[in-house]
Amino acid sequence: MPIPMKIAGVGHYLPSRIVTNEWLENECNLKKGWIKRRTGVEERRWVEGESNSEMGAKAAEEALRMAQILPDQLDLIINASGTPEQAIPDGGALLQRALGLGKSGIPAWTIHATCLSFLVALDTASHFLWSGRYRNILIVSSEVASVGLNRKDPETYSLFGDGAAAVVICPSETKDSFLEQALFATYGEGAELTEIRGCGTKNHPSKPHVPLEDHFFSMKGRSTLRWIRKYKSSFLEELLPGLSQGLGDIKHVVPHQASGVGLRVMESLGWPSEKITRTLPYWGNCVSASLPLTLYQALREKQIQRGDKILLIGTGAGLSLGGIILKY
Amino acid sequence: MPIPMKIAGVGHYLPSRIVTNEWLENECNLKKGWIKRRTGVEERRWVEGESNSEMGAKAAEEALRMAQILPDQLDLIINASGTPEQAIPDGGALLQRALGLGKSGIPAWTIHATCLSFLVALDTASHFLWSGRYRNILIVSSEVASVGLNRKDPETYSLFGDGAAAVVICPSETKDSFLEQALFATYGEGAELTEIRGCGTKNHPSKPHVPLEDHFFSMKGRSTLRWIRKYKSSFLEELLPGLSQGLGDIKHVVPHQASGVGLRVMESLGWPSEKITRTLPYWGNCVSASLPLTLYQALREKQIQRGDKILLIGTGAGLSLGGIILKY
Repeated sequence: MPIPMKIAGVGHYLPSRIVTNEWLENECNLKKGWIKRRTGVEERRWVEGESNSEMGAKAAEEALRMAQILPDQLDLIINASGTPEQAIPDGGALLQRALGLGKSGIPAWTIHATCLSFLVALDTASHFLWSGRYRNILIVSSEVASVGLNRKDPETYSLFGDGAAAVVICPSETKDSFLEQALFATYGEGAELTEIRGCGTKNHPSKPHVPLEDHFFSMKGRSTLRWIRKYKSSFLEELLPGLSQGLGDIKHVVPHQASGVGLRVMESLGWPSEKITRTLPYWGNCVSASLPLTLYQALREKQIQRGDKILLIGTGAGLSLGGIILKY
Repeated sequence: MPIPMKIAGVGHYLPSRIVTNEWLENECNLKKGWIKRRTGVEERRWVEGESNSEMGAKAAEEALRMAQILPDQLDLIINASGTPEQAIPDGGALLQRALGLGKSGIPAWTIHATCLSFLVALDTASHFLWSGRYRNILIVSSEVASVGLNRKDPETYSLFGDGAAAVVICPSETKDSFLEQALFATYGEGAELTEIRGCGTKNHPSKPHVPLEDHFFSMKGRSTLRWIRKYKSSFLEELLPGLSQGLGDIKHVVPHQASGVGLRVMESLGWPSEKITRTLPYWGNCVSASLPLTLYQALREKQIQRGDKILLIGTGAGLSLGGIILKY
């Protein structure tokens, strides 16, 4: 059942520090060209002291300007991120404070579904619009991936970037814009394929014998890809019949930027390359921020027009698959 | 606007290890009676190796049995917890796997609003029922607070307990059960009053000069209480006019078990003591699990009957206030 909702504003923030492949290949003793060939990334941004909430607030301010909504007109703030700035409170409250709304009382909390956090939040927020519980909702994905990377693992060390993106959604008065379909699937059997074992209660930093590596991201790339290949067709067909063999009436695809190989999987489905936005080469995989950052870029480059039917899709740790079809 | 929804099953899990005040007062060199006087807690449970997902799965199994729903009939699993088992993937996937559903594809993700995670998840899940997106939804709050406590801070060290609770919600076919009202308010200005500064990107364990204390919970108890006193009346009046001076037609109150002083605030509002369930004395403050654990206990003790109008209410890090009024 379509849920009326309108993406009224989008915003982004990227750290000014550009980390090139050349620099990383030097740092990790890799052959020239190894990183691009292996990950599809040419450069990425890494923070120089910026926090999740600072980046998120800057992205949010841009989205609010575009939506022509004042910060204190917001009814709900959802932090939809995979990396927390600190364990408690959750990033929603920190983001609210960074937006100068610390005395506002605007509800703020966090959805964590790793790389799919933004999609889950978009679906959730649409439901809140529909019931009338909230009218103006801010969703922010802000990720500092770089501090959780292991220099000894060049594939993941070079794959991820830092950044933030924000979206303001409002009721669609004319009902021309709506969320048409959403589908999520989680397969916990693959939890160990992409993980940070630490920074939680199981391998807490205060426990003895927890190696530093446990607080870094680790990925079994090949197994993850095999897993995606196994589940992708049935998932896509459930999302929209025919989608595993072509885009049908979908005008444009905004994918999570998992990796170069991950993006190439889409072309094997018969989805035309020019209908898929790629930000991986210059921003890397920015965890949950990749999806809204790529939406931001597709809109900036006018690849998407008001009224277009678009597909937002991705994979995430869990392992999970997620897709949303919406009329922009 | 009332949202039809029915709490079809509740479940709980508590570690078998009982930590007494006597043991803690010895351990921390405190005078006999100090802990009970200061926190209202007489004993609490602490894990002996149990993980968030193991505890959560046991609570969920009990809730599913009561709801007469098989695990694979679930349509959505929400992990609504303040302490993560590990950073990535989120606890939803880990819980799904612990329930033996790792190959099921049932969507699973996390809501983190610290002590209010369960309330936010209950409101969110009700919206999903209403739209028809999902029918049988499992919400699990599972907390291992004990590993994040600082032995040098006896007030917080003795306040918190570990435990898990689960709720299964379904559409209310007869519409006799419904969520009547929900209200949340966050004041990020108070983010520093109750926090764990570490275990995130800001004070990541891999960074130099991050003291171990940063990975432990810290609380400015008096300031937090002052803050609650400042905001409580206007919040309660917005939730339900008259609530700041009496319960009206609300039959029973299921509060978060923040602390002894926090619970006494409620009596100052003219809410009869016998209508408020307390689990703080024997389970302590179990972060987000306190609310559903206290609901479990109120149902077990037949303080709540089918059809009763009840209030679930609490405070959380953020700082936040949250309340839900529902017809059970």
